[in-house]
Amino acid sequence: MKSTYSVESLTQNTTPKTRKSAKNTLKKRSSPAHSSALFDEENDFEGPTRCRCQRCEILHPTDRIRIEGERVFENVIKVQDAVDQNVEGLLNDLQELISFKSISVQPEMLAESMKALDWLADRLDNLKFQTMDHYVPDDPENCFEEPHRKVLFSRYFSSPTKNTVLIYGHLDVVPAKPDCWLHDPFTMHLEQGVIYGRGVTSGKGMLVGWLQAIECWLKVHGDLPINVKIIVDMLHEVGNSGLHIYVKERKDFFLDVDFMVFDANSWLNNNNPIIACSLSGWAHFGIEVRGGNKTLESGLAGGLVFEPMIDLCHLMNSLVNDDHDILIPNVELHVKALATHEWQLLEKADFQTYAYKEQLYIRRLRNEGNKVEMLQNRWCKPTLTMHGVEGADSHPGCRRMLPMRVVGKFSIKLVPDQDVKQIQSDVNDYLERCSSELDIGTKMTVHLLDGCEPSSWSSDSTLTKAVINAVFDVFQKMPIVTEGIPICLPVASVLGNLIDKPIMLVPYWRRRDHHHQENEYIEERCVMQHAKVCANLFYELSVISSKCKCHLLTDYCNRRGIMEKLDEERGYFNNESPASRRNQLMNVFRKHDNVSHLTHKRRPFNARFKNFLCIPFAWKRIRKHQKH
Amino acid sequence: MKSTYSVESLTQNTTPKTRKSAKNTLKKRSSPAHSSALFDEENDFEGPTRCRCQRCEILHPTDRIRIEGERVFENVIKVQDAVDQNVEGLLNDLQELISFKSISVQPEMLAESMKALDWLADRLDNLKFQTMDHYVPDDPENCFEEPHRKVLFSRYFSSPTKNTVLIYGHLDVVPAKPDCWLHDPFTMHLEQGVIYGRGVTSGKGMLVGWLQAIECWLKVHGDLPINVKIIVDMLHEVGNSGLHIYVKERKDFFLDVDFMVFDANSWLNNNNPIIACSLSGWAHFGIEVRGGNKTLESGLAGGLVFEPMIDLCHLMNSLVNDDHDILIPNVELHVKALATHEWQLLEKADFQTYAYKEQLYIRRLRNEGNKVEMLQNRWCKPTLTMHGVEGADSHPGCRRMLPMRVVGKFSIKLVPDQDVKQIQSDVNDYLERCSSELDIGTKMTVHLLDGCEPSSWSSDSTLTKAVINAVFDVFQKMPIVTEGIPICLPVASVLGNLIDKPIMLVPYWRRRDHHHQENEYIEERCVMQHAKVCANLFYELSVISSKCKCHLLTDYCNRRGIMEKLDEERGYFNNESPASRRNQLMNVFRKHDNVSHLTHKRRPFNARFKNFLCIPFAWKRIRKHQKH
Ligand SMILES: [Zn+2]
Ligand SMILES: [Zn+2]
Ligand SMILES: [Zn+2]
Ligand SMILES: [Zn+2]
Repeated sequence: MKSTYSVESLTQNTTPKTRKSAKNTLKKRSSPAHSSALFDEENDFEGPTRCRCQRCEILHPTDRIRIEGERVFENVIKVQDAVDQNVEGLLNDLQELISFKSISVQPEMLAESMKALDWLADRLDNLKFQTMDHYVPDDPENCFEEPHRKVLFSRYFSSPTKNTVLIYGHLDVVPAKPDCWLHDPFTMHLEQGVIYGRGVTSGKGMLVGWLQAIECWLKVHGDLPINVKIIVDMLHEVGNSGLHIYVKERKDFFLDVDFMVFDANSWLNNNNPIIACSLSGWAHFGIEVRGGNKTLESGLAGGLVFEPMIDLCHLMNSLVNDDHDILIPNVELHVKALATHEWQLLEKADFQTYAYKEQLYIRRLRNEGNKVEMLQNRWCKPTLTMHGVEGADSHPGCRRMLPMRVVGKFSIKLVPDQDVKQIQSDVNDYLERCSSELDIGTKMTVHLLDGCEPSSWSSDSTLTKAVINAVFDVFQKMPIVTEGIPICLPVASVLGNLIDKPIMLVPYWRRRDHHHQENEYIEERCVMQHAKVCANLFYELSVISSKCKCHLLTDYCNRRGIMEKLDEERGYFNNESPASRRNQLMNVFRKHDNVSHLTHKRRPFNARFKNFLCIPFAWKRIRKHQKH
Repeated sequence: MKSTYSVESLTQNTTPKTRKSAKNTLKKRSSPAHSSALFDEENDFEGPTRCRCQRCEILHPTDRIRIEGERVFENVIKVQDAVDQNVEGLLNDLQELISFKSISVQPEMLAESMKALDWLADRLDNLKFQTMDHYVPDDPENCFEEPHRKVLFSRYFSSPTKNTVLIYGHLDVVPAKPDCWLHDPFTMHLEQGVIYGRGVTSGKGMLVGWLQAIECWLKVHGDLPINVKIIVDMLHEVGNSGLHIYVKERKDFFLDVDFMVFDANSWLNNNNPIIACSLSGWAHFGIEVRGGNKTLESGLAGGLVFEPMIDLCHLMNSLVNDDHDILIPNVELHVKALATHEWQLLEKADFQTYAYKEQLYIRRLRNEGNKVEMLQNRWCKPTLTMHGVEGADSHPGCRRMLPMRVVGKFSIKLVPDQDVKQIQSDVNDYLERCSSELDIGTKMTVHLLDGCEPSSWSSDSTLTKAVINAVFDVFQKMPIVTEGIPICLPVASVLGNLIDKPIMLVPYWRRRDHHHQENEYIEERCVMQHAKVCANLFYELSVISSKCKCHLLTDYCNRRGIMEKLDEERGYFNNESPASRRNQLMNVFRKHDNVSHLTHKRRPFNARFKNFLCIPFAWKRIRKHQKH
């Protein structure tokens, strides 16, 4: 999945004169986010395909709209201030969320997970979201007897003319042993500007930022500048089990999404936030070795038969040498070379070898003497992990079984620009050769169990620049942008593949924080900054001109709006939108059928649109025109 | 456990003149079972330690007793005839048992297992046994969620002077797919002298033989010539999970057992039954490889850490070469050499390589070209089996886990005269050397998870001869006796170790039968023959003079009999013995305290003893004296 968001924002290069802020937002405009945007729809003005929908009206602005646009541009500053004034609210949200012991690896905590999800659903309801739970069906691949099966789908629909962002969140946490904590892991503890609690560096801490951003936008303007969709998983920490099922089942939920945003813990060091523009992938293999049609007893058949486990052991052994280097030929052939600044990044990375080892009781690391090589191995090169063996005796105790069909599982981490197909064929060829050299008496088959392409996108794209702007404006520091050091965020890779929309990664915590560890903590400042980045990002995303949605609008009009369409077809949402809001929307779309949409009389500008924040790109357009 | 039953029978070498039978039982006495028995208590006659209990009275017989003895000796012939006439009864029992779908590997079949056990308990109640179920407590090593937890303990107590045999049985079966069967696997089908049904070659077919032997003895004589104890497990086919727990909990049940008998499927060929005098053992090892204190995520830590799974793979790989030969030095050092006749046995063995492979869909066997080497490997040499890996990903599907503590499990089959300690030290030394040669970055520890010594006993012992006689008398064919080709019967090895009494192995089925396979069958003739062997064995065991039980009797007397003792102390049995029988016993033992036991007046011979079958060895004694 190598996607570059192609349509550029309209006026990123215009310095907004009206923007006054204590945070010297003028600096923001000197950021590298300059686009040489060309508005390629310009020449289509009034042409035969020109549609007369709300958006098209805005694209050909009148004076009334210009005035409205300038007003809207000031909005983001007000929202930032609102976030600053609402520290209390943010901490309250976090406190609530931390108190749920939603430990997904412990099926007995299911009820706590559901409580956390209910709390969030209520919260989002108050923020004018429409929310539903989705029960994930039984997953045959799910190793949990009683999985935390609900997934929350929520949406805020403002206008079909606005961009729609999909936010992924999760509220499940990894286990916490209270004995090892200074304070109760499930009670938020704030001390000297530091927040302690399980989940603050993970899903819970991340999600409160988005909640604040939403709340403050609504508080200031009564609307959001974009449409927002949120999915919240409760099985994140156990590998998002069942993800592909619910995404496929609710495919229409993602139809109108323009971009996806993920919070990522990717700070290489503490001086600068890092914005990664690549994700690692993987190829998960199973070496099936079959000796017969059923499990035998070792006492009876041992010595007589060739044992699949032994052959498997020989085969897996030939995958890596004693130093754990991959022995499969050409495996590093397509790996993207590091840029000079990325080499330097690895050199300066705040990775503390000693602390890492001590924390995990590890004796020795690979390439410990050479930091760059060590980190390169970790992040930038394909590496092989052996996961385990299926079909053999994996229980404690001793059983005298002699398994006659086993599957040895290993995976290779893939980095840009490797691809799954190539690796699969390399692995196949190599193992076939090994098995014939070993002359095994059993039968080997290599399966690709799961594959996810690594991906990267341009650090120059509009989308990346939107994130850079949002981050820079808050931190007043240039974030580092990398394409060659991929982040491992499997859920982003998988959703990227499934939903196929452009991805943004928003940096969240700092390297020194105790992510998933005892006494997990984060600075209060970081959580606040994240909330402001979120608020900024709403603005930045709203001014990106996505592809023309006229065809979608036509479709909406014909079917009396996406909201109604979804509601009618699926009966998803229990909370019907208030009739007034519904009518408001209907006034816009009513009677637009396929024909009338193109021919109907221009409607007068509707004063009610003032309350919508759909205008910015129209305003930008004006700006651009003024400049010329 | 190398136990040879040391006390010899008194007059095995005497030809019984009174024995007349269509089966030419005279041939029996020309069997190799000649003992040079010396009755070492002989000189203790009337000495200061001579006790005046019932048994000692018998040891110094009067004329009355001699007459009684001769009567008793004829009993076994009548019983054999009774078995022959009761084919119907035997088939009925088998039909009932087959109908229970007591598949132990399927926890949902628990109810069926319990029904089978209830049926057996009822049956044994009718045979004057006292029976109890024993609930096996939760076994932490039990991989079954809902195990078939009941074990049946049953006993027939005739007289404290008689030998006590412990019979092990099981009524659980392996699964059967009805589609692959010509007839319903759980309905007995009899066609042209062949019985089809799941379990006929295993526990169910074996147990009906013992039931017939008991029933016919009781029918003919109203009593058994020995005391019988039976334990019936319902988890045999899943490795007798929990065995050690219930045996240890009910240790007193086994206190007065003299010998244990197991049915064994050990026919090397179809011409002669085989009586094995050795059992293989095992040493089950776990190679623990630990890299850190918790499971990591492969995408985050892969390439950075040394992976325990990879090191484990290297270590396990060094245990065996490509031909699956063990690479641990000296591993075959203490293996007993085969006798010439055992070599010839292997050469003539009815092992059909092609059929075996076809049945199990196996492509190739080890040493396929050389039959003796192949079977020697299977039975007579230590071999290594890899069972699986604990702590790694063993579930279907893909999890991105990087396990930091894994235990690779393998076992070595041990044969006489190897021993567990020696193998443990060999394995330890070798793996330590390997791990330092590989210079692994993780930490390895080798654990002996389970060990069971191989055992062998003399083919010349009284006990072995008892089995030989019992078998020969029925089959009219010399059984083959081997010490060098051990049988794999883990439950026998384990119970042998736990209970520490001499073991007998009684051959049951024939090589060509479909043990544990589809269309499992056995010839009706074989089941009948087995029943008669059982009946014979009761007799043969009754004439073995075990160690003097005077000290036990003294103990019994003091505590008013073992039955009462057990009943009072434990409250085991729900069915109290009928008061009359109790009083009968009490008449014998009452008032025998430690002192009076040695000094009380000789009681007159009690006519009631005619109904007991406690006399044979007294009779033998007379015979011997007459010979001199
Ligand atoms: Zn997390
Ligand atoms: Zn339009
Ligand atoms: Zn069996
Ligand atoms: Zn005595």
